[in-house]
Amino acid sequence: MEEEVKESWELLEELLDAGSASDLSFFIESLASKERGRAVSRLDEDHHVKLLELLGPELAADFIDDLPDAQAADLLEEVQPATAAAIADEMDSDDRADVMAEMDPLLTQTILLQMDPDEAKEAREMLEYPRDVAGGVMIKEFLSFPEAVTVEEIQKNMRDHADEYADYHVQYVYVKNAQGGIAGILRMRDLLLSRGNATAAELMLKSPICVKHHASLQELEAIFDEHPYIGIPVIDDWHKLVGVILRGDLEEAIGERADERFLKVSGIVGGEELRSMPFIQRSTNRLSWLSPNLILNMASVSVIAMYQDTLEAAIALAVFMPIISDMSGCSGNQAVGVSIRELTLGLINPKEMFHVFKKEVGVGLMNGLILGILLATIAMIYSTLGESTMNPWLGMVVGLALFFNTIIAVSLGGLIPLFLKRLGKDPALASGPILTTVTDMCGFFLVLSLAGQILDKLA
Amino acid sequence: MEEEVKESWELLEELLDAGSASDLSFFIESLASKERGRAVSRLDEDHHVKLLELLGPELAADFIDDLPDAQAADLLEEVQPATAAAIADEMDSDDRADVMAEMDPLLTQTILLQMDPDEAKEAREMLEYPRDVAGGVMIKEFLSFPEAVTVEEIQKNMRDHADEYADYHVQYVYVKNAQGGIAGILRMRDLLLSRGNATAAELMLKSPICVKHHASLQELEAIFDEHPYIGIPVIDDWHKLVGVILRGDLEEAIGERADERFLKVSGIVGGEELRSMPFIQRSTNRLSWLSPNLILNMASVSVIAMYQDTLEAAIALAVFMPIISDMSGCSGNQAVGVSIRELTLGLINPKEMFHVFKKEVGVGLMNGLILGILLATIAMIYSTLGESTMNPWLGMVVGLALFFNTIIAVSLGGLIPLFLKRLGKDPALASGPILTTVTDMCGFFLVLSLAGQILDKLA
Repeated sequence: MEEEVKESWELLEELLDAGSASDLSFFIESLASKERGRAVSRLDEDHHVKLLELLGPELAADFIDDLPDAQAADLLEEVQPATAAAIADEMDSDDRADVMAEMDPLLTQTILLQMDPDEAKEAREMLEYPRDVAGGVMIKEFLSFPEAVTVEEIQKNMRDHADEYADYHVQYVYVKNAQGGIAGILRMRDLLLSRGNATAAELMLKSPICVKHHASLQELEAIFDEHPYIGIPVIDDWHKLVGVILRGDLEEAIGERADERFLKVSGIVGGEELRSMPFIQRSTNRLSWLSPNLILNMASVSVIAMYQDTLEAAIALAVFMPIISDMSGCSGNQAVGVSIRELTLGLINPKEMFHVFKKEVGVGLMNGLILGILLATIAMIYSTLGESTMNPWLGMVVGLALFFNTIIAVSLGGLIPLFLKRLGKDPALASGPILTTVTDMCGFFLVLSLAGQILDKLA
Repeated sequence: MEEEVKESWELLEELLDAGSASDLSFFIESLASKERGRAVSRLDEDHHVKLLELLGPELAADFIDDLPDAQAADLLEEVQPATAAAIADEMDSDDRADVMAEMDPLLTQTILLQMDPDEAKEAREMLEYPRDVAGGVMIKEFLSFPEAVTVEEIQKNMRDHADEYADYHVQYVYVKNAQGGIAGILRMRDLLLSRGNATAAELMLKSPICVKHHASLQELEAIFDEHPYIGIPVIDDWHKLVGVILRGDLEEAIGERADERFLKVSGIVGGEELRSMPFIQRSTNRLSWLSPNLILNMASVSVIAMYQDTLEAAIALAVFMPIISDMSGCSGNQAVGVSIRELTLGLINPKEMFHVFKKEVGVGLMNGLILGILLATIAMIYSTLGESTMNPWLGMVVGLALFFNTIIAVSLGGLIPLFLKRLGKDPALASGPILTTVTDMCGFFLVLSLAGQILDKLA
């Protein structure tokens, strides 16, 4: 056994117990941001509170910005609302909105009331947007000037506010018209290469690409795909400039959506789960998906109950039924995966059900044939165990059942996500359970009703 | 029935058959990039070839850059190598590397030989890197100058090459030392606010943050989390500047990894599948995952085969066995999902198996208890169907089996991804099949061996 070196979370715990703010912030600075997340997930609530209080609002905000949103939200929920408000005041507008969206809504309101009024106003504006539209992804930190301002004045302003603007990520300067709408965009290059007395209105690129605040991630992605810009301005329904979307933030949001989709197909619903969350929350959240699943299971096994006599007469079928159920589920899930992916990429339209059916039924036929023959062979070999002669009928029944059920599973697997999308439901969430229920019902029915036809040959 | 308006792919097909290059490029320009992908996935090979040839290398490169990588690779494989080479010459370095990595390696070599030697050299350099390290994500389009150059000279160079640099995304200028290493970074702001005769060496930020060309996506993410930069320079083992990583490209690569993970848990392995791919490729690719699964299934159902007599004596168990198998699989998959996610976020270390076990076994106990009681109740009600009295023993057997098997499934589900990660295997690929096999074996064993103990009471 190697002698254990102390983990960073154990060191952090000791520093928190010692209570020196300067030692603490020095240690935190030395940790990579992944280490911070790991440390937080190992500390208890008391130490979380101590940590944020000792760091003070500004450093605590930097610390929280680096954590996964769900973890950051948990931390802010644990401290006093006044402390949380002071920290929230210091956070970046987009991170703050993401974190607050994961918090208890009532607590969020309490914290907003104790925040700096300007910051609270900005936070409320951003909280109104879902996370998957332009307004939920944009940042509020951008530079804008009126049309009449000169290059010299802009340069002076930038020099004077260099510290404040250091946190601003945007490489463009936005020119506003008298109504607060966007008149044009100045690139750094324009400011760099122009004479000092030129006005913003003279230099700016007019009628720049803008996006509406309710544009979807898909629409935003299409726009960023077509244009090389790092940032695109966001306007509200009255064409007022309300924020800027950065390419990096958009890609991050798309990545988060893919992560969410992954968690949903794993049966983690209603937000992400971290093991640092309270036990009861984790347990009940998982049950909320498992319980409806149990009901769906009842529907599929009711088919077996109906054919119980057939099964009793040919008990060897019981060995092969779980295989047919599992293999059909797997084949169907592959088609579900491809459909969800093609929907996300925009390569299929939810209405193109016939196109998808045509593409899937062929694969179902081919793979059903191969898997059916494989299973039939296995079943025939199995029938010779403990007996002197081979019974080809068992193989025929299970092989045929798997053949037909694979075709059904693959076609349905391709279609279910499109169907759910058309109903406005989330395909990642419901496709799996619906598919499994239907393919199990069909699979059990096929095996048992086929067996029922030739029961004398199987028994 | 609504009168069908022609789909954009149908219009595109007509334009291709008509053969006018100008009409075609005008129409393509009018399509959003998602529409382009959809159109390509509906056209046949002949029309793909016509499309790229009519567009000409430059427009074809723009067109291909917008498509998903797998689709772009398919298109380039269909045209003559000389045509593909001419198009590849015009593509962005990072997109080109991504697309070429998806192509047939032999064909890629043929195309590289016919490309412009400089472009081919750049492409070869980038193809050496896997897609999930710095070298695979970086771009080659960046500005660099020697230390002695003055602000005035840089400004002149930028003015003179304004067209060429228009495609460059980076907002920094890199200063190289005599050895080709990176000496410092100039921000646009520095160029903007400095006198013309200052040299790069005087103005640059010295010892800038760099990343090694083999840094992982995780490491890169940690660095971008800690620093607000839009781009970070990449150096090779000899500290030579070889490229620049942009925040947006990194986030995109992380999103692609999440997408791949999603496809893998859906059983789509060995690269992504699009329905525009050839039928045989789709079918065999899916079979390559299904066939080993069938073998794993044989292992789990062998337990049923062993206890066939018990099952025959208490046939009602056959109704409940698929439920135990499915529910345990679902419970275990939730834990798999959380572990894979926490590994990605760096919140757990693959060695922390005991920590994960402690966190999961509690959830398994609780959810096993609730689901076990539910299933026991359902089984007791079921036993009264068609009979006059209730048989509590059936409920007890299936309830207990589900209780114990849920604990096993949830704990194992949490641990399997950590275990695979330690072995250097991809948790997304193998966790599901391994989990299902083990929990099925345990579940069937628990039901049937418990039932065997009290067979007289069940029959």
